[in-house]
Amino acid sequence: MMSDNHIYRKKIEDRLARIEGHVRSVKNMSKDGRECGELLIQMAAIRSALDNCAKLILKDHLQGCVVEAVKKGDEEEVLEDLNKAIDQFIR
Amino acid sequence: MMSDNHIYRKKIEDRLARIEGHVRSVKNMSKDGRECGELLIQMAAIRSALDNCAKLILKDHLQGCVVEAVKKGDEEEVLEDLNKAIDQFIR
Repeated sequence: MMSDNHIYRKKIEDRLARIEGHVRSVKNMSKDGRECGELLIQMAAIRSALDNCAKLILKDHLQGCVVEAVKKGDEEEVLEDLNKAIDQFIR
Repeated sequence: MMSDNHIYRKKIEDRLARIEGHVRSVKNMSKDGRECGELLIQMAAIRSALDNCAKLILKDHLQGCVVEAVKKGDEEEVLEDLNKAIDQFIR
């Protein structure tokens, strides 16, 4: 389980709820036969919202888990997980 | 409205439905207090699924709308919209 000092979790969940609704609305735009160009512009907006939300998770992670783990001298696993996540995110 | 020669729309809608569910599940992971590292890995997976779905929309767009518009000598608006979408997607 995560540590207690995560200050952005509520904000992250609100943003994910908005992204979820945005994806659903693009799906419905496609079903309604809307133009590809319109769909692509919405996809770009979702991607940017997703990246900003991931940034917030990363901030929480650095301020919370990582600092705490380093203080306890227990950083090995946390840093390994973080590196994995960064590797997957930035290709 | 879009032209009739879009062959990927059903596939695009299925993928968007999956992405929607994936975003919802990350929101629930956050509510359940799961680790930031786990959340980040899922966010990277969603981003990659989103990019692949956008690629499919772009393929449909090129094969359908753009080719058709060029044949009709009517490409100006379609190309302008496409450029806007690409500008927003690749920063």
